[in-house]
Amino acid sequence: MNTSLKNDRFLRALRRESVDTTPIWVMRQAGRYLPEYRATRERAGSFMGLAQNPEFACEVTLQPLARFDLDAAILFSDILTIPDAMGLGLSFAQSEGPQFARTVRSAADIARLAVPDMDGELRYVMDAVRLIRKELAGRVPLIGFSGSPWTLACYMVEGGGSRDFATLKAMCWNEPTLAHRLLEVLARSVTAYLSAQAAAGAQALMVFDTWGGLLGPAPFREFSLRYMAQIVAGLKQVAHARELPVILFSKGANAQLAAMADTGCAALGVDWTVDLDDARRAVAGKVALQGNLDPAILLASPEVIRREARAVLDSYGPHPGHVFNLGHGITPEVDPEHVQVLVDEVHTYGRMPRTK
Amino acid sequence: MNTSLKNDRFLRALRRESVDTTPIWVMRQAGRYLPEYRATRERAGSFMGLAQNPEFACEVTLQPLARFDLDAAILFSDILTIPDAMGLGLSFAQSEGPQFARTVRSAADIARLAVPDMDGELRYVMDAVRLIRKELAGRVPLIGFSGSPWTLACYMVEGGGSRDFATLKAMCWNEPTLAHRLLEVLARSVTAYLSAQAAAGAQALMVFDTWGGLLGPAPFREFSLRYMAQIVAGLKQVAHARELPVILFSKGANAQLAAMADTGCAALGVDWTVDLDDARRAVAGKVALQGNLDPAILLASPEVIRREARAVLDSYGPHPGHVFNLGHGITPEVDPEHVQVLVDEVHTYGRMPRTK
Repeated sequence: MNTSLKNDRFLRALRRESVDTTPIWVMRQAGRYLPEYRATRERAGSFMGLAQNPEFACEVTLQPLARFDLDAAILFSDILTIPDAMGLGLSFAQSEGPQFARTVRSAADIARLAVPDMDGELRYVMDAVRLIRKELAGRVPLIGFSGSPWTLACYMVEGGGSRDFATLKAMCWNEPTLAHRLLEVLARSVTAYLSAQAAAGAQALMVFDTWGGLLGPAPFREFSLRYMAQIVAGLKQVAHARELPVILFSKGANAQLAAMADTGCAALGVDWTVDLDDARRAVAGKVALQGNLDPAILLASPEVIRREARAVLDSYGPHPGHVFNLGHGITPEVDPEHVQVLVDEVHTYGRMPRTK
Repeated sequence: MNTSLKNDRFLRALRRESVDTTPIWVMRQAGRYLPEYRATRERAGSFMGLAQNPEFACEVTLQPLARFDLDAAILFSDILTIPDAMGLGLSFAQSEGPQFARTVRSAADIARLAVPDMDGELRYVMDAVRLIRKELAGRVPLIGFSGSPWTLACYMVEGGGSRDFATLKAMCWNEPTLAHRLLEVLARSVTAYLSAQAAAGAQALMVFDTWGGLLGPAPFREFSLRYMAQIVAGLKQVAHARELPVILFSKGANAQLAAMADTGCAALGVDWTVDLDDARRAVAGKVALQGNLDPAILLASPEVIRREARAVLDSYGPHPGHVFNLGHGITPEVDPEHVQVLVDEVHTYGRMPRTK
């Protein structure tokens, strides 16, 4: 399937093979910093109206690729589609914060949860994947993704955003069996979800563990990492997903990179609070790394953006297995021209021999 | 001065001397989880009315000590007293978030800033320190504190709270000279402020770098650590402050512990996302460590609180130089009885020999 790809730098880097230059894509590259995204969003009426309509989702997925020479596309969707499909009623408040109509807190709440139907409630996601693949026509690979079980549980138990997600944490300490039951059904759901995205045409898969970094080392391994490892292992049991590289990204869990590299995933996302050379040493060549420019650098001048992009590339050094990205999603205030500057610099400087 | 202390465990641990048991205090121990705090706050009318009145500040500082066998008191105040004294007009919105009437963004804004008068605008803080010392009557040591230059600058430039404080970051990338000028006047102000607190009777000093963890490694050293190091060095030039242990706490900057240990400070605060044994190895015995229980553990049952407190003590091991604390401030939802459980367990288990 990938043999027809016109640009396979991203997949080659994930496999730690040699590349002509460092591939780059940008977390949230289809987002509010683009006027054309805001226009489509306006037409869709709401964020969910945008995300749940395959034509709109395809349109915004492709928008950044029309502007920039990015090396991968990522499905436009939300990390909370699974709990929404489980019947929790997802909506987005004015400020873009997610909110659920129903929370999940008791044994009975958890018993009611079932793996959603990938041809039913979540069919719109698979339709979007199919449509995007068709429209991409092999230009670059398409990344499918999901929230991690821990991160989905954070929102489901809390009912929305939170600074510390203490409600789920308290469940983990006081009723660990309950928490594990919830995480278990979520891990099975995420595995089925990513597997269905693979079947629909996704060429790489990413798990966003946005709130894993809120946990201490031992609880991280017990409540977050364990279920991501289950997903990676589960995908290897599925014929059409087996070969797909999986990227895990636990923002802020930098002390856990070595443990995460042992899950069998292909790559780890890395935020900007560690140097890539330290991260590379921590994972001992077992996985590729994706990152890690501070998103706020894109608010700086082109000159500074170029300098800092080179610093990230130099920090990773001449080794195979680097996918350039930000350390977190791009923010709405960024000037799109600055993304052009970044992409150009990564592709130009990424071609040069580095000796570090 | 300290010879008259009835309980000097905290100061001994900061000096990495032997102690009969592990000392404990709790960040934000004088806070909203205590009904008596809420009552005083009610009488004071507002948060600033509470913080700026030495009698009220003394009252709430002593409240947790009346309930729990804590090994240190910490001055009740706010981390943003310095910019308020610089004329920026600090207030707290309904949600307790800080807001400034004026922001600091231009060269002219920064040129207007001067080190506040410790006997003028900030005299209320020194009066509180003197009153608390008197009322404590040597029971436990009193900690004075300040926000770090970086953290003060975050709020001053942004004008209030933020998720990423990108306005200050953009200033750092685009106009580093301006950012350094701002941080410079703040470092001189913090040095004078902590020095004045020492003169008024504080027996240890802590610098809260709440937002240092938002910076990547190199910018952290340039814009945050450098100024904390300047403060530590500056305090060593002052006769009445020279001997006081200084604790630095940069939440989330765990990759920087080794660099922070080289500033000449006595101890580092550590959040709960790293194991204390790893943190101890990183600082190579140069400083004491303070931490690092996840504050959310206090929402769990007494049994879990005891188990997790023991896990923190075991992780630090039999070495000198541990002050038990949370990895971040205690939250308003905590049952005060749970703090009692924690303090008792730390003092009981802390007495036992550990071999790890």
